[in-house]
Amino acid sequence: MSPDPRRVIADLRELDRRTGGPGGARRVCWTPVWEEARRFLRERLDEIVGVTVELDEAGNLWATLPGERGEVVAVGSHLDSVPNGGWLDGALGVMTGLEVLRAHAGGRRRSTLTLVDWADEEGARFGRSLFGSSAVAGTLDVDEARALRDAEGRPLPEVVADHGVDLDRVLEAGRRRERLAAYLELHIEQGPVLEREGLPVAAVSGTFGVERHRLVFSGQASHAGTTPMELRHDAGLTASITALTVEAIARRNGGVGTTGALRLDPGIPTAVPGRAELLVDLRHGQAEPLARMLAEVLAAAERAAEERGCTVGAEHVWSIEPIPFDPGLVAAAEEAARTGRTLPSGALHDAAEMARHAPTAMLFAPSTGGISHAKEEDTPEPDLERAIAAFCRLAEKVVAS
Amino acid sequence: MSPDPRRVIADLRELDRRTGGPGGARRVCWTPVWEEARRFLRERLDEIVGVTVELDEAGNLWATLPGERGEVVAVGSHLDSVPNGGWLDGALGVMTGLEVLRAHAGGRRRSTLTLVDWADEEGARFGRSLFGSSAVAGTLDVDEARALRDAEGRPLPEVVADHGVDLDRVLEAGRRRERLAAYLELHIEQGPVLEREGLPVAAVSGTFGVERHRLVFSGQASHAGTTPMELRHDAGLTASITALTVEAIARRNGGVGTTGALRLDPGIPTAVPGRAELLVDLRHGQAEPLARMLAEVLAAAERAAEERGCTVGAEHVWSIEPIPFDPGLVAAAEEAARTGRTLPSGALHDAAEMARHAPTAMLFAPSTGGISHAKEEDTPEPDLERAIAAFCRLAEKVVAS
Repeated sequence: MSPDPRRVIADLRELDRRTGGPGGARRVCWTPVWEEARRFLRERLDEIVGVTVELDEAGNLWATLPGERGEVVAVGSHLDSVPNGGWLDGALGVMTGLEVLRAHAGGRRRSTLTLVDWADEEGARFGRSLFGSSAVAGTLDVDEARALRDAEGRPLPEVVADHGVDLDRVLEAGRRRERLAAYLELHIEQGPVLEREGLPVAAVSGTFGVERHRLVFSGQASHAGTTPMELRHDAGLTASITALTVEAIARRNGGVGTTGALRLDPGIPTAVPGRAELLVDLRHGQAEPLARMLAEVLAAAERAAEERGCTVGAEHVWSIEPIPFDPGLVAAAEEAARTGRTLPSGALHDAAEMARHAPTAMLFAPSTGGISHAKEEDTPEPDLERAIAAFCRLAEKVVAS
Repeated sequence: MSPDPRRVIADLRELDRRTGGPGGARRVCWTPVWEEARRFLRERLDEIVGVTVELDEAGNLWATLPGERGEVVAVGSHLDSVPNGGWLDGALGVMTGLEVLRAHAGGRRRSTLTLVDWADEEGARFGRSLFGSSAVAGTLDVDEARALRDAEGRPLPEVVADHGVDLDRVLEAGRRRERLAAYLELHIEQGPVLEREGLPVAAVSGTFGVERHRLVFSGQASHAGTTPMELRHDAGLTASITALTVEAIARRNGGVGTTGALRLDPGIPTAVPGRAELLVDLRHGQAEPLARMLAEVLAAAERAAEERGCTVGAEHVWSIEPIPFDPGLVAAAEEAARTGRTLPSGALHDAAEMARHAPTAMLFAPSTGGISHAKEEDTPEPDLERAIAAFCRLAEKVVAS
């Protein structure tokens, strides 16, 4: 049977009908609605002859059609969403992977073909993204995960146990990577580039590296009425100068830099801020310019603080190196996309974890208005059809090779 | 008996011992500790022969020594403090006024002399400053006060009733202004100017006008990783640019401008802020430059928003006009201060409400490090002595005139 993009879209609509609501997608991992999404996936998988479905130790779902060789070509993404999320984020890749299985059912193939639905890509409940794929990749810090609690104070180990996952055993899922010959993922772009360029699909060259740091500026809190301008040590304005410099540094280095969280203290209109906490998120596709961006930002913060009689301290929050995808597979993805466009991914994906161990590639479908993680998330259906068709071509080629 | 500044300082130390703690002053209005502060004041007043003590309808305490004429010269300030406040803010003026009464006890004088301890100058509990003095001035909006609640949700009318105040009758305290011939107040500067200039006391020319406005910037929230720099509409950076322009405008116009509260939305490190709320507090001693500052700030916010594809709306939060004190009394205050220095007050004081109805003047004592509203608030004792002595000279002259 040849793949049918319209069937994938119908499945996505049905999933949205079952698990979405007026506020958007509700498939938050480790919740009943997420289990309902997986039930729907299993129903569809049950209709495919010859498929074996398994859960691994980290809660990832693997649906396998055996091939002539033991090596595995995996296609997939994640069913879990953020609260009030969109209908396509993650689900597009899983439902397209389902169609790849359907297209292969009953036939023979060289490689074993597996659809993987990663557990807790979003980290929406515990703040730890890429849970399932990092367990398989061996990069999950189990002790760090053990300490996590959700907003209601429930510990992660207790919550995942309700869904059959024993945290002490999650790294055993790592054996899944051993026979992995390739990993392929279709995802929405979650940004505005493809829409602006009028393209329905593009290949992805890899994921950006991220440097996330907290800058804490200390000045002198004082009375808004009684402190002359020339005697102030305003930590808030020092943070503002630094935020604007972050923007300039990102532009100059061809990366992105964001200052989305700023907390002033005491934070009232009648006091000059004596303290300001600025979170800086820097991203770049290459390690060297990313390191340069970080160095420039830290120097700029020091300079701004010095000019205003303040001090600044920097705390490392989180970072990941840039992860390039496999050049051969990216070339195959470009050929399947037929748009001549390859772009890096500024967002992280499970594919970044897989790329540590196996040749990996991704395709992006456009995001209307660049919007994601919101109920307004959408992609025009003609673009979805072309992106799904391109992914099925790519998977077909890799499975056959 | 001649006034003794050292006795005032001893009273202030005793008040601090009775009502302060390791975190600072705790004389928050409408609390048992505030009542304790007033008990201490009444004990000291009871020692003065011929003094009559009354509470008015707004909770202000009036301690009166009759004179040959019915017209009243009032001296005073407020015993109430902010939570974790300082030992001198307000208390200095009340305890110095007590010394003025002591110095006059047993003698005769032309004017009636009254010490007033204003209720709830700070507005610490309900956010409404100058409660008692604005009731006497007739500017208190009773319906607005009726709607106020404290942090625990208790309504203002209920809380003040526990302290003998019927909110429906507070404006009856206005009769107190009818025979007011002059109002004099000693207060700490709460700013760094006198300390920097090495002066123990100065006259005050009046209080700054204030324009407080909320600027709400709307851009487009988007993903920190997937949104290229050139496609962003960052409401947070637009607010940062505006905050820095507020500073420049204040400097250029010889006023002060503060941006002490900034809220970003969604306010997370991984999202470009789609919305930013910036509170702008502008102050100037004269109406015309204050109006110009406001117009320039609003224009700058519009310009910054336009340059970044954002929009901005402005909401009026609160304002008060500049209130100059009486030129004749200010000259008398300068003469009593003997330092040749007169400065405007960037903070509001009960004196501003009294200046609407009677000739008014103030003296400032220096604040160490410009710090107030904190347990570190202090003034060197030699400076306190000279400021108290200057105030007693000023009061003596006005009462005799």
